[in-house]
Amino acid sequence: MTEKIAVLGAGSWGSVLANLLDENGHNVRLWSNNPAQVAELNDQHTNQHYVPDFHYSESLTAYTDLAAALDGVAAILFVVPTKAIRSVAQQVAAVLAETKKQPIIIHASKGLEVKTHKRLSQVLSEEIPADLRKAIVVLSGPSHAEEVAKRDITLITAASADQQAAQFVQQLFMNDYFRIYTNNDVIGVELGAALKNIIALGAGALHGLGYGDDAKAALMTRGLAEISRLGVALGAEPLTFIGLSGVGDLIVTATSVHSRNWRAGNELGSGQNLQTVIDTMGMVIEGIPSTQAAYELAQQQNIEMPITEAIYDVLYKGADIKQVIPQLMRREGKPELQ
Amino acid sequence: MTEKIAVLGAGSWGSVLANLLDENGHNVRLWSNNPAQVAELNDQHTNQHYVPDFHYSESLTAYTDLAAALDGVAAILFVVPTKAIRSVAQQVAAVLAETKKQPIIIHASKGLEVKTHKRLSQVLSEEIPADLRKAIVVLSGPSHAEEVAKRDITLITAASADQQAAQFVQQLFMNDYFRIYTNNDVIGVELGAALKNIIALGAGALHGLGYGDDAKAALMTRGLAEISRLGVALGAEPLTFIGLSGVGDLIVTATSVHSRNWRAGNELGSGQNLQTVIDTMGMVIEGIPSTQAAYELAQQQNIEMPITEAIYDVLYKGADIKQVIPQLMRREGKPELQ
Repeated sequence: MTEKIAVLGAGSWGSVLANLLDENGHNVRLWSNNPAQVAELNDQHTNQHYVPDFHYSESLTAYTDLAAALDGVAAILFVVPTKAIRSVAQQVAAVLAETKKQPIIIHASKGLEVKTHKRLSQVLSEEIPADLRKAIVVLSGPSHAEEVAKRDITLITAASADQQAAQFVQQLFMNDYFRIYTNNDVIGVELGAALKNIIALGAGALHGLGYGDDAKAALMTRGLAEISRLGVALGAEPLTFIGLSGVGDLIVTATSVHSRNWRAGNELGSGQNLQTVIDTMGMVIEGIPSTQAAYELAQQQNIEMPITEAIYDVLYKGADIKQVIPQLMRREGKPELQ
Repeated sequence: MTEKIAVLGAGSWGSVLANLLDENGHNVRLWSNNPAQVAELNDQHTNQHYVPDFHYSESLTAYTDLAAALDGVAAILFVVPTKAIRSVAQQVAAVLAETKKQPIIIHASKGLEVKTHKRLSQVLSEEIPADLRKAIVVLSGPSHAEEVAKRDITLITAASADQQAAQFVQQLFMNDYFRIYTNNDVIGVELGAALKNIIALGAGALHGLGYGDDAKAALMTRGLAEISRLGVALGAEPLTFIGLSGVGDLIVTATSVHSRNWRAGNELGSGQNLQTVIDTMGMVIEGIPSTQAAYELAQQQNIEMPITEAIYDVLYKGADIKQVIPQLMRREGKPELQ
């Protein structure tokens, strides 16, 4: 099976997934709104700022022209930052309204829309009307772009309300080192991906404050419990949180020094000022807006989320991390599964 | 509340828990069948072989005489190796038959009895008849003895069918850095503690074979799913596996280079021969007999456990780890939550 596929967003994850699809024999068009990056990909077959020293397939073509990239495609993969999803989806809808091709829509972004707290598949379905597309499928799971680029084994989830669409996406991506499991719980998969960054921030903060592995494992476990509580209140299946997109992604994010969110938490715990951390990171720290979204959703749903609340107090209310985290870890003992 | 408590077993975990109980104000008797170790604990207040450079409380007293250690105690904490639980329980029962004091029985050991595959609370309840004791409570969770000795924050579970007994144990142990959550799922807590060592062996093997963080997180996630499947078939609550004694302990065991099981797996993955690994470790590698127990239980219960089967093939059938693990990670893609 060879398909025409557009990949929107040429950051590390988008460009590596585009390369993998090319390697699987598909006809892939990688779109970016950065002309210098597109030229580098087409001429040097590199993307140095995002995946240093990786040589992309010479048959992979990059585009700045969205209509050209989308021409005749069977699937569109969104891998743009959370805050750009809505505007890119609007541009895509305008092109699809002309072409009437009805591709499958896939996204591999992680986060919730700021202010609305909507999941990204909700944003996509609002902006790309159902008559312009087939189903929406979410790709998520424990995956460092750098490891996929090296062909290390990676297992992720393809979630959709439409299982045929999920299986189609599974077949597009599956190869010897990249294994796809299907799942029908879109809500749980998207919430796990967004909310795990909060726990990664907390795990990094514990490390920066000097705590050990016991405290980190406890925070991750109790954090998983509270993001599951919120997820279930919002319609997710509880078992999704112990799957690849839940605990799997949490493990890879909260135990890896390569994770931006973990590093940001670690610097906060080490005594760095929040603004300095944001400025020096130079990339989006998704856990920061996700903490606000989760905090506000927890208030609306009346869900107890002590870890999220503690991190919210540090990020948004100027609370002292040196006091808040020890207080959090010393709450009253109680039944574990309340 | 001050209680007389006997702690049986003066390895690293038993001696550190005894010291913590002493610090909490209890009258603690630490029993070991090794006279040199008892003399070192009473004279130097150290236990160098197990917890180097740690100074124990001078009010903590060690005994070789079991009857003296058990005299008048309200609780007995077993922290002996899995293979010694039954014989020590028989000796305890003989003493209790004379004293008629009916203490609470607690254990903090992790494993399944070889051959019978029984959980340790089952062994204890068989050997210490109900008229000689109160309830049985299991302590389990992500806890390195070395971190508790340093007063790093640690959160664990006290599980019992009798919630009053679990709360009593919670109060005995709880302090500023050691936090206890109660739980009523004894089966799930004991199975999680025993079976997570299999996954730690596998995670170590992946590292030794050169795989990255994505593969490790995937193996831990799929491993958690399969030990939960077996646990549920044996009567456990599924949610227990995402608690402290499940995923919490799995995280601390499978991501820490301090874990014996992880290290054994890592050496096997690096090409070491099994017998050499066992010989050089010099301590019990609980994951090896646990793999056999889980394999046999899975056959009886007709549960699919591909990770356990792969590790069993390496440990007990001489299969080549360099072939088995890649085959395992490349199984057909399928629905995630079957």
